[in-house]
Amino acid sequence: MRLIEEFARLPGIGRRSAERLAFFVLKSPEPEALRLARAIQDVKQRIRHCSVCWNLTDRDPCPVCSSEARDASTVMVVEQPKDLISLEQTGMFRGVYHVLMGRLDPLDGVGADSLTLADLLRRVDDPARNARGVAVREVILGMNPDMEGESTGLQVAAEMARRGVRVTRLARGLPTGGQIEYASKAVLADAIACRQDL
Amino acid sequence: MRLIEEFARLPGIGRRSAERLAFFVLKSPEPEALRLARAIQDVKQRIRHCSVCWNLTDRDPCPVCSSEARDASTVMVVEQPKDLISLEQTGMFRGVYHVLMGRLDPLDGVGADSLTLADLLRRVDDPARNARGVAVREVILGMNPDMEGESTGLQVAAEMARRGVRVTRLARGLPTGGQIEYASKAVLADAIACRQDL
Repeated sequence: MRLIEEFARLPGIGRRSAERLAFFVLKSPEPEALRLARAIQDVKQRIRHCSVCWNLTDRDPCPVCSSEARDASTVMVVEQPKDLISLEQTGMFRGVYHVLMGRLDPLDGVGADSLTLADLLRRVDDPARNARGVAVREVILGMNPDMEGESTGLQVAAEMARRGVRVTRLARGLPTGGQIEYASKAVLADAIACRQDL
Repeated sequence: MRLIEEFARLPGIGRRSAERLAFFVLKSPEPEALRLARAIQDVKQRIRHCSVCWNLTDRDPCPVCSSEARDASTVMVVEQPKDLISLEQTGMFRGVYHVLMGRLDPLDGVGADSLTLADLLRRVDDPARNARGVAVREVILGMNPDMEGESTGLQVAAEMARRGVRVTRLARGLPTGGQIEYASKAVLADAIACRQDL
């Protein structure tokens, strides 16, 4: 059955789960099954990238970029829309975002041109291109804390230094709730080097 | 066999492993088996706590406290000797330690009196009690990043504030090598709140 193959192509869905899902659809009333089909079609038709920050959205600019309650002068740069969603769930960040749509990975042939870095620079250079026309004053590097994320961050930081924009990065250190005994050497080294005044 | 029971009492050793270990000892040549027994006795007889920092050691003061290469004015306060070992393995810390031998846990009946906090205060108040007679200038809170660790740290910090000693804590944030997508809300919140200038 073609539906089984299609389900099995989804991440984390093995052959058995795909069969279970397919038979569930097969047995459910027609309107319900069609609702799933339609939701999939809708997503593909309606969801696009925000023209300011590249977030996924069904209206442009996206709700974050257009919100009066957000501080559009602080831009957190992230790799993927998924990262934006995780950060938004904390409710701790009141600025806006820029989604790079990837990270520098020369070994994999991903250079700055494959990312949305040029769009970020345009937002900084021309406030009219930024959310609600506000000038960018701080860029927070929100890349993943690994090698590719680090080198992507360095490139962004270099461009910002040239433009006199303040650059910060998400704190590195011990993950709250973790245990020192089981932390890796790299994590402990960060925690020591970046220790915070109380 | 009594040896099986004894092995099975060790952490992470189940019944089956204990049997395997016991039979291994049973089959190994007598000198080897006795070396294990002697090593266990030796540890119990020779290893004690450093009179300065409460680290486990076979000589007093311990090698960290007596090393000329360490900066004895910076004292990292940790909960357990295990934490000290993890931190030492990074090779990043050049100061000395103080092991509290636990953490405040009122629900479990652990108050300040059960810890070595009074010894820490004596080290601060009287340089002669500190490693190599050096005055303490900075105390780094190296407790686990959880609730009990936090409240233990606050108590230490309060005592230090009264004495005018600088207090820092190990950085909180994203664990290097991790992924933003899978970080908990609390970790992301720390990473945003404590973001670091580049």
